[in-house]
Amino acid sequence: MIDFLAPSGDKAILESDGPLTPKFDAHGLLTAVVTDHGDGELLMVAYMNAEALSLTLETGLAHYYSRSRKSLWKKGESSGNMQRVKEIRVDCDQDAIWLKVDVTGHDATCHTGRRSCFYRTAQLVDGQATVTVTDHHKHFDPAEVYGGQDTK
Amino acid sequence: MIDFLAPSGDKAILESDGPLTPKFDAHGLLTAVVTDHGDGELLMVAYMNAEALSLTLETGLAHYYSRSRKSLWKKGESSGNMQRVKEIRVDCDQDAIWLKVDVTGHDATCHTGRRSCFYRTAQLVDGQATVTVTDHHKHFDPAEVYGGQDTK
Repeated sequence: MIDFLAPSGDKAILESDGPLTPKFDAHGLLTAVVTDHGDGELLMVAYMNAEALSLTLETGLAHYYSRSRKSLWKKGESSGNMQRVKEIRVDCDQDAIWLKVDVTGHDATCHTGRRSCFYRTAQLVDGQATVTVTDHHKHFDPAEVYGGQDTK
Repeated sequence: MIDFLAPSGDKAILESDGPLTPKFDAHGLLTAVVTDHGDGELLMVAYMNAEALSLTLETGLAHYYSRSRKSLWKKGESSGNMQRVKEIRVDCDQDAIWLKVDVTGHDATCHTGRRSCFYRTAQLVDGQATVTVTDHHKHFDPAEVYGGQDTK
């Protein structure tokens, strides 16, 4: 596993070229934003611990940490929808990672079968905060792909 | 302020049309991913509490919660780079929000003056996790815009 250095207290160092020094939160996690390398669509948001980030860098396949299952999560291991990482970006304070990926399998990332987890819009309707499904297309049948497995 | 309903324990309800029921974390926060409405570029990742989400929905201007300053943060109040929200999406389990925005002012989101906070790539170089600046263009001079203010 990669032994990441601790973040510098000097913002000038933290924000420039140099070693990747991820700023893990109190739970040891970074936020990861995942977009499609082809058209830039936002596919999902997930979290990485040092092991998941290390494996992602070393294997080129996206790994996360599942907060609900409390375990390492190789994306696509159940569904076949793995993510080949084409580029990794990091933000100014190094507490968030952006993965640009190609999705294998059904080209779907959401456990509901949709391409993106962000398949709904949110807006105020008559003063009520409301969500509306805008992407109805399911690329796979979750019941068939996951069976009785816990998907989150 | 909008009085958000508690998330349903029934995944079928949580994942379909209906009320927005944000799943705030133990600190009362949601993750917010912000992209440019025009070309889809990822601009920043931030966090929202109920007040910030409420104000964003009600005013159409992005508001966040600053974890370092422990206070509500109307984006662009110091720099002039406000974010007009064109569309809001929510993910399957309603713990992440995606804002598609038009940025006013210098068309820059990062406190370093760059368009996006994700101005560096991360990769292994000779086995070392390394970051490299790929966007050197600063749209404004941070010293001039912020003066002595805390920018994070």
